[in-house]
Amino acid sequence: MQTPFSDIIPPAAAWVVTLVKLVNRRQLTIEWGHCDPANMVFNARYFEFADWSTALLFQAALGMTKPEKKAKYDAEIPLVDVRASFIKPLMLADVVEIASSIEGFNRSSFSVLHQFFKGGELVAEVKEIRVWVEIDPLDPSKLTSIPVPAEVIERFNTG
Amino acid sequence: MQTPFSDIIPPAAAWVVTLVKLVNRRQLTIEWGHCDPANMVFNARYFEFADWSTALLFQAALGMTKPEKKAKYDAEIPLVDVRASFIKPLMLADVVEIASSIEGFNRSSFSVLHQFFKGGELVAEVKEIRVWVEIDPLDPSKLTSIPVPAEVIERFNTG
Amino acid sequence: MQTPFSDIIPPAAAWVVTLVKLVNRRQLTIEWGHCDPANMVFNARYFEFADWSTALLFQAALGMTKPEKKAKYDAEIPLVDVRASFIKPLMLADVVEIASSIEGFNRSSFSVLHQFFKGGELVAEVKEIRVWVEIDPLDPSKLTSIPVPAEVIERFNTG
Amino acid sequence: MQTPFSDIIPPAAAWVVTLVKLVNRRQLTIEWGHCDPANMVFNARYFEFADWSTALLFQAALGMTKPEKKAKYDAEIPLVDVRASFIKPLMLADVVEIASSIEGFNRSSFSVLHQFFKGGELVAEVKEIRVWVEIDPLDPSKLTSIPVPAEVIERFNTG
Repeated sequence: MQTPFSDIIPPAAAWVVTLVKLVNRRQLTIEWGHCDPANMVFNARYFEFADWSTALLFQAALGMTKPEKKAKYDAEIPLVDVRASFIKPLMLADVVEIASSIEGFNRSSFSVLHQFFKGGELVAEVKEIRVWVEIDPLDPSKLTSIPVPAEVIERFNTG
Repeated sequence: MQTPFSDIIPPAAAWVVTLVKLVNRRQLTIEWGHCDPANMVFNARYFEFADWSTALLFQAALGMTKPEKKAKYDAEIPLVDVRASFIKPLMLADVVEIASSIEGFNRSSFSVLHQFFKGGELVAEVKEIRVWVEIDPLDPSKLTSIPVPAEVIERFNTG
Repeated sequence: MQTPFSDIIPPAAAWVVTLVKLVNRRQLTIEWGHCDPANMVFNARYFEFADWSTALLFQAALGMTKPEKKAKYDAEIPLVDVRASFIKPLMLADVVEIASSIEGFNRSSFSVLHQFFKGGELVAEVKEIRVWVEIDPLDPSKLTSIPVPAEVIERFNTG
Repeated sequence: MQTPFSDIIPPAAAWVVTLVKLVNRRQLTIEWGHCDPANMVFNARYFEFADWSTALLFQAALGMTKPEKKAKYDAEIPLVDVRASFIKPLMLADVVEIASSIEGFNRSSFSVLHQFFKGGELVAEVKEIRVWVEIDPLDPSKLTSIPVPAEVIERFNTG
């Protein structure tokens, strides 16, 4: 049985903003296989880049890789909503910096902002809404959204 | 030189809604390579599916493949903004129906809605904002947003 | 624990050739996201196409989808060796026919041939060597190569 | 018009082996989106990794990025044949080292070997056959195989 991910995104006012927050930065180079016939990065690739940037942001905060985090918390953070804005194209051999941070935590959901920079200029943004879900050890396909652990939230507060 | 895609999304009120509109439907089966270790379709794939669904929607409307459309109009329709909501996961061997339609045209931009159904139930939505851009034949990297041709808009009106 | 896939490919002479064999054919259209800046299908995509073509070949033979096959046999068929030849490029909007068949079975390994045709002309070939491995229900990561069941081999013999 | 890539692979004896050769090494981490439901890297990804590893090998040899190389030589190096062997699986968060080198040059074709190491152990190999083709500036789709420039070959000889 699959668990639906509906009706879990709270109104904006309810978000807990982490005022002093961790930003993880990584660089990647645009490869031939990332680009489409218009010589630009194919749009689906931005979401692949963002997905792994979230994993690296949590790794920077918690000091655990994605499988280590799963092993410790029996939890995953599936994506329920995502929005991207493409400002300028990225092209073959461009070097991109992706700056990733948590915009805010709610009870069990949270928002991750990924900003793509090229030569210091913002060229794209991806905003993800993810949910902290617990995995039933007896039935790994059974997911239940639970509050993000306080100790996890605390690690993103760098103040 | 690349052309920026900024500041071209009009306020919602300005959209020209096509009241009687063309809906293109296609079916696809979820493949092994589409799925991630959680046994669900990896999120980036939804945007790949949506991108080609837009090409097929235009093909249904205009009777031209994507390269034929480009040859006729010297135009492309790059994506400038996209939002996806994931309601229930899609899993290996699931058969999905994607229903695609234009939500509205503005001067040079337009909104495309892709609804993903599984067994008649809505499981995901992708909304794209695209822009009709003219390609300079002497410099293919030079893109200029121009009004969507009236004859194109008319083809989506099935009333 | 992972299980190595080494030293399981037998010498060519040992292959059991199925003389009267099942060929599964499917058509697909080359999408924008499949193509690279040279306007041709990016090479990695051929292997994605071939992988799912193998799943469809087994589905045609056994009358079971890939997850149904796994549920019945507690088996997977991982790829251990693959070779591709690219004769002519595939381009945007091309309609391709992929003809897939088993070249031969050995004890636990088998060879799958995928031929890509465009307008009746052979444009690419992918040859996969796969192994029938049993999954330990108590430890899904433990794989053991076992003989392909005779009833499975029989289903590819259409004589 | 497309140019066929057939009949250009010479017999093995004809290969010019570069005895003292450049090896380019890069590290990458296996991401969530690289993996399939078996928790292993999906096979098509190895070819994506190899393709860009070839670009980086040439960049190490020539001191030019892929677009810079194209601008200087009006040449591309399309893949005509590729073979992969998968020895042990790669899994989420694994750190992989890819060691890439030229196995030999012939007149216009050459062979690139990519070895994938995990913890010092060889886990996969990809061997590519590529061809040096000239691009007609007046018709970019017209490709003609020409001898690899001697100055290019020389740069891979590190002795």
